[in-house]
Amino acid sequence: VARLDEATCRSRLAQARHGVLATVHDQRGTDAVPVVFAAFGTGFVVPVDTVKPKTSTRLGRAVNLEADARFCLLVDSWSEDWAELWWVRAHGTARAADPSELANAADALARRYPPYRTAGSIVAAILLDVQRWQGWAAR
Amino acid sequence: VARLDEATCRSRLAQARHGVLATVHDQRGTDAVPVVFAAFGTGFVVPVDTVKPKTSTRLGRAVNLEADARFCLLVDSWSEDWAELWWVRAHGTARAADPSELANAADALARRYPPYRTAGSIVAAILLDVQRWQGWAAR
Repeated sequence: VARLDEATCRSRLAQARHGVLATVHDQRGTDAVPVVFAAFGTGFVVPVDTVKPKTSTRLGRAVNLEADARFCLLVDSWSEDWAELWWVRAHGTARAADPSELANAADALARRYPPYRTAGSIVAAILLDVQRWQGWAAR
Repeated sequence: VARLDEATCRSRLAQARHGVLATVHDQRGTDAVPVVFAAFGTGFVVPVDTVKPKTSTRLGRAVNLEADARFCLLVDSWSEDWAELWWVRAHGTARAADPSELANAADALARRYPPYRTAGSIVAAILLDVQRWQGWAAR
């Protein structure tokens, strides 16, 4: 078993193109949803966007995080060859980006994801402060 | 926005090769971990195996589910073309398979995953009873 050290965890998560954000839900226990993200400051930023179609920009993930700020962000690499498997997850607390932080947060996302280069595509952002790393690799 | 109906959710999840299982953790709020699974009875089965290297078969997911049985199982399809994105998730409660159920549960997993055709590769199983489906597709 390879437990991945914090530097490897951080590097693999920062390079991943997408992940899964798990949050606490009072009734359902947890919600998990795919997210895109970018490294931002010492942590990560997840957008609230107008690009991927939604019924509302009042997202379940944001509602959940207002009630309980704890998150788990998972990145995993799947392969039918299980010797290639690995995953990394970050635990910590989340908060909404301040208006003064939003432009920089949106820039960090736009550098990684071309659809966010369109003005107005990001309307809010969730900042993830990582307090704990865990990582696993099959070899 | 396309919300996926329950039949579509069930079908897409049953066909997926892997997913993410989110469970409740008292201190961290949630844990999310990649899992393989198979349709089993009216729900799904997740193995506790000896194939993917671990420090223990006393897995965090099982410990979490003993304390709080609520789970969220997510399958998502990533693409750089965001018109192709979709995800499905199932919410419900989990329990350990009884000894009398384990052989059938292991068979269901072995049919999908060749590494589980080796005797002794599955030592326990978690049964997922789905109470709620949610699904989303970009188009």
